[in-house]
Amino acid sequence: MNAIDLAQELKKGNRRALAKSVTLIESTLPKDRIEAEKLLALIKNSDSSIRIGITGVPGAGKSTFIESFGLYAISKGKKVAVLAVDPSSPVTGGSILGDKTRMPNLTMNENAFIRPSPSKGNLGGVAKQTSDTIKLCEASGYDIIIVETVGVGQSETAVSNMTDFFLLLLIAGAGDELQGIKKGIMEMADLILINKSDGENKTRAQRAKNECLNALSFSRNRKPFWTKDVLTISALYNEGIDLVWNEIHRYVLESKDYFFENRKNQSKQMFSITMKNKILEDIESMDLDEISEKFLLGNMTANNAKKEILKILTQNSI
Amino acid sequence: MNAIDLAQELKKGNRRALAKSVTLIESTLPKDRIEAEKLLALIKNSDSSIRIGITGVPGAGKSTFIESFGLYAISKGKKVAVLAVDPSSPVTGGSILGDKTRMPNLTMNENAFIRPSPSKGNLGGVAKQTSDTIKLCEASGYDIIIVETVGVGQSETAVSNMTDFFLLLLIAGAGDELQGIKKGIMEMADLILINKSDGENKTRAQRAKNECLNALSFSRNRKPFWTKDVLTISALYNEGIDLVWNEIHRYVLESKDYFFENRKNQSKQMFSITMKNKILEDIESMDLDEISEKFLLGNMTANNAKKEILKILTQNSI
Repeated sequence: MNAIDLAQELKKGNRRALAKSVTLIESTLPKDRIEAEKLLALIKNSDSSIRIGITGVPGAGKSTFIESFGLYAISKGKKVAVLAVDPSSPVTGGSILGDKTRMPNLTMNENAFIRPSPSKGNLGGVAKQTSDTIKLCEASGYDIIIVETVGVGQSETAVSNMTDFFLLLLIAGAGDELQGIKKGIMEMADLILINKSDGENKTRAQRAKNECLNALSFSRNRKPFWTKDVLTISALYNEGIDLVWNEIHRYVLESKDYFFENRKNQSKQMFSITMKNKILEDIESMDLDEISEKFLLGNMTANNAKKEILKILTQNSI
Repeated sequence: MNAIDLAQELKKGNRRALAKSVTLIESTLPKDRIEAEKLLALIKNSDSSIRIGITGVPGAGKSTFIESFGLYAISKGKKVAVLAVDPSSPVTGGSILGDKTRMPNLTMNENAFIRPSPSKGNLGGVAKQTSDTIKLCEASGYDIIIVETVGVGQSETAVSNMTDFFLLLLIAGAGDELQGIKKGIMEMADLILINKSDGENKTRAQRAKNECLNALSFSRNRKPFWTKDVLTISALYNEGIDLVWNEIHRYVLESKDYFFENRKNQSKQMFSITMKNKILEDIESMDLDEISEKFLLGNMTANNAKKEILKILTQNSI
């Protein structure tokens, strides 16, 4: 199928065409990349979807939450896509996430589309591909786009920058080392969930909630129209999922103009990331040996080395 | 003090001058950056130092190990520098590492120099600064340079790329989620330590060691001259530190030509990273609004947008 056929099938909600389109977008073959650009030009951005980013400390129950939340959304008549941003592990290039068995019921549901993270490339590249996959899903009629991240560093920012609403999943007593991650992410989050608030754990979850609320009272509020809340939930027992759903809808209502302005800024930002990545790739495919040698021997300044590289980049991009 | 004075004081082993030099290198002020480049040009790379990278799962006892190992090296007549690579947390810019209280005895020792991670900037920038700091420490007579990393993703590669020998600290039963990180890092490591092998934990540590050896038998060996080992140690009780010390020295002997060839390649790689960072910074300081607008409206192809950006970059770097 070429770009035109794919675009047509996407509009019909053909799930196989969606899977094929995503594969096309993730391909590194030059001819696929041209076709991918064509496809992206043929589809339109959606104004009715909600893009939800999710992160959490390890063991917070992200998969269980996504399964529970996704099935809830489907019960409300929505179509749900689950994507992931998980930049390659440095040596093996393998993906930690992406195991469909983590969400058995959602995987089997015909109104759900689950796609693991593109496992190749750097964070910028992965972010671009995921961002494009969001558009494909929306063109295919998916209303709720969930983008999850491994909660270990830089991918949160990337996910936050491609979604409308950012969820942070915590559990009571996740240990001090993990809390180190939390501060910056807490500022990014639009809603914080203390998961596994069930049985004997309820009191501890409530305490964790209070600690969070306390920490939040000292942190910056980045969106004047929105005061982020902390909810205790149990994804495993489907408790509190409706509250999360309501909070997200309240956000859409209360964010008003900001919602689409934010998406526009995100597009701009993604453009800048794409350009930077293209230029980085060009530099990486250059043979820098000669310039590097001159520089390391002290025969060329850093600034002149840079000018030399820019010159070659310009020559190569005709 | 200017670059020439600093270089002279560095050679004398003046620790205050070293601290000042590192601060100079981390400065973003244009005049400081020129002075920093001068300073770096004035000092020489060391052929007698050993640069040791250290990573580990949270809770593996990295600080305790570094304290124990560092004091051991000092008892052997060495001078020890401890640096860290810890790219900023995305929102707050704060550093997780760098707390000197984690290594109370080493901090107080006059033959040790401990410096937290430069907390500003992206991984490439932090790596460049740390790499330059290594050179400053070596110029100041430090023989053992320890570079630690937070064990959560991309900084391991950066640290591995600026050190001669890479240590991975594990503990028995660190949980499945954490083991996910392990595979790629295990391939990078030159020696794996199972820490906290003491008291009741000894049997479990031995079991973890066997599991590691088993996993290693299935992984690639990146250095033909070196078969990496797994040692059980107890940093807290100073058990096995001498074995680690011996392994590192065995590595220096057996790596022969590779040792300096590797450093040369690392310098080349760092040059490439520096150039990429300079160009990225230039792009980030550009106003891309107009080009971005054209591109997002479909009035400019990605390739033409890139050419336009390169043109402006070249014009700006005169």
